[in-house]
Amino acid sequence: METLILSDEDVHRIALGVGLDYLMDELIDRLTKAFETFSTETTVVPARDGFVYDHPVPGLLEWMPCMTYGDRATVKLVGYHPGNPKTRSLPTILSTIGAYDTTSGHLICLMDGTLLTALRTGAASAVASSIMSAPGSRVLGLIGAGVQAIAQLHALSRTFDLEEVLIYDVDADVQGTFTERSSVFASHLSIRPATVGDLVRKSDVICTATSVGIGEGPVFYGVEPKPWVHLNAIGSDFPGKVEIPLDLLQRAFVCPDFRTQAIREGECQQLTPNQIGPDLFEVVQNRDRYQHVRDQITVFDSTGWALEDHVAMNLIMELAAELRLGTRVQIESIPVDAVNPYYFATSRRHETAQRRPTEPVLFESPDIAFRQTGT
Amino acid sequence: METLILSDEDVHRIALGVGLDYLMDELIDRLTKAFETFSTETTVVPARDGFVYDHPVPGLLEWMPCMTYGDRATVKLVGYHPGNPKTRSLPTILSTIGAYDTTSGHLICLMDGTLLTALRTGAASAVASSIMSAPGSRVLGLIGAGVQAIAQLHALSRTFDLEEVLIYDVDADVQGTFTERSSVFASHLSIRPATVGDLVRKSDVICTATSVGIGEGPVFYGVEPKPWVHLNAIGSDFPGKVEIPLDLLQRAFVCPDFRTQAIREGECQQLTPNQIGPDLFEVVQNRDRYQHVRDQITVFDSTGWALEDHVAMNLIMELAAELRLGTRVQIESIPVDAVNPYYFATSRRHETAQRRPTEPVLFESPDIAFRQTGT
Repeated sequence: METLILSDEDVHRIALGVGLDYLMDELIDRLTKAFETFSTETTVVPARDGFVYDHPVPGLLEWMPCMTYGDRATVKLVGYHPGNPKTRSLPTILSTIGAYDTTSGHLICLMDGTLLTALRTGAASAVASSIMSAPGSRVLGLIGAGVQAIAQLHALSRTFDLEEVLIYDVDADVQGTFTERSSVFASHLSIRPATVGDLVRKSDVICTATSVGIGEGPVFYGVEPKPWVHLNAIGSDFPGKVEIPLDLLQRAFVCPDFRTQAIREGECQQLTPNQIGPDLFEVVQNRDRYQHVRDQITVFDSTGWALEDHVAMNLIMELAAELRLGTRVQIESIPVDAVNPYYFATSRRHETAQRRPTEPVLFESPDIAFRQTGT
Repeated sequence: METLILSDEDVHRIALGVGLDYLMDELIDRLTKAFETFSTETTVVPARDGFVYDHPVPGLLEWMPCMTYGDRATVKLVGYHPGNPKTRSLPTILSTIGAYDTTSGHLICLMDGTLLTALRTGAASAVASSIMSAPGSRVLGLIGAGVQAIAQLHALSRTFDLEEVLIYDVDADVQGTFTERSSVFASHLSIRPATVGDLVRKSDVICTATSVGIGEGPVFYGVEPKPWVHLNAIGSDFPGKVEIPLDLLQRAFVCPDFRTQAIREGECQQLTPNQIGPDLFEVVQNRDRYQHVRDQITVFDSTGWALEDHVAMNLIMELAAELRLGTRVQIESIPVDAVNPYYFATSRRHETAQRRPTEPVLFESPDIAFRQTGT
């Protein structure tokens, strides 16, 4: 009944062990299946909740739970503290996620939630884009070339046969380093900077993944995209923060990942309820019915759905087991005598006193097969 | 930026290292101070929330968050699965609690939540009883002699000069082993079984800590307690579950730990809003104003308040640091390059591939002073 603790290093070893491409392909595949089989009868995804504060430093700490009956619950804790980089040399987002057995309550595993979030956000865009984008889409535009854009490109490069990738970022440094940062998986792709106007006009699929300020969006306007463009709107995740122009949204088929949340903090904030289309899982479950949207403008309003974290964590846990990575620690109290909270002080007092703390079991993986070669 | 993982063994070593009495005294002291200084300006305690299910096995998994601005948040996850003992030889309750830095979002520590819960529930009763019970209270009655009763007796034995402890449990085995189970701290006390009627009639302070079924309460009736009796109602923690007779409650000064929660799942379920008194922190902050309640029947409606967990965890973390116990693991992703989720695959690919997983730092405490001697 130990808990598996995966260090960041363990997660990196998993990603490198199986290869980034394998990891992304598998995640897209599992996410597709999860959307196909999603039902509120088997899975519960409450809206995220948390602490939001503006003093002494602005930030938020929120929990994103998801539960499948008789199987597992995952609860991701996400800290968002924009002052971290400057004052602490830490990333804005720090996150961990725990998996619980919903038949016993046992904490099965605890691991980092940040890389997992980037991966699943990319994978969700891949699922949405593969259904809603026009057949033969070849040009991808990325507005915002930061951390999320890397995972978006990775996921979409596994889904589309891309001819060209156009990138734009308000920060010239971020734009300038994108090609190098994506080289680990995208060295075969033609990536070039573009004006935001050119990017919007020429792309078949667009991802907006910016840190535009509250009330400062949209991130483009006054430019007409292709009549079949599909947009993945990634950045909107807070009340008042939007990336897509209202007039475009109003003409588009808008598919949120999680309607309640998208209305509160996604692009759907800008829309009336009747302007919002079905959730992504409904589109995935009824592909034929939504076939026609491929010819029109479509928007995937991605605010981050806890089911995506759930699927990603299950995958990483499986790979950790396969590669025998992680540290096992007995955290939960399992009393020898269920009606004695002090059992350790009576029956085992002397034994406990003389014993060293349990040495954690540290798995080693002597011969991880690096399926990802030196791209 | 590592996370401190405390194993159950670490927590036992802390408890034995400082001594159970010291731990309880310190906790009562800190809880008193926390109630004295509690303000919604500095501390946020949302109602607990979670998943409740009745298939494939009945259970619930809930989270209890608490946050002090600019300091720490704690989130306790509690699994309650009544089938655990029979089907898995596991306790009904499995629990872990995490502490987060609310200036950075960092997960500081993760540890077991079960022992901590028993301790803080006992300590909260001690705080409530010390203010509301009649001066010179000497006889304690325990209805329900299970795991919580041990911690209740421990806490109250540190607060009162007890002459006699009367116990009653519907389960003769549980009643029969109580003296032995409590001997680690209570060998100097006169503990004897009683009928529930005798117990209620003779006690100055009563704790009800039963697992009475939903709709099956109260746990005593038709017997008149002393006119100054103070009751700590511990067991009510679910809609429909109550322990105290309504006619007694209606005559009593009823003080909930957390009004909103007590109305939903505590004794306060039975009352109308105007029959419910102030929360415990208000009574602690205005001792003089509530001096008169010592002469009347008083009830502390204890449903479990996340602030109590918060205080208990902070104490245990301090003691862990003092005794240098726990295992440190780098769990959260701290990218070298903040805009590259795959930084580990580019700059450090070969290094990571060849490196063993980080060896966790395991603290040892070579010479823990056992302040608790062989009582």
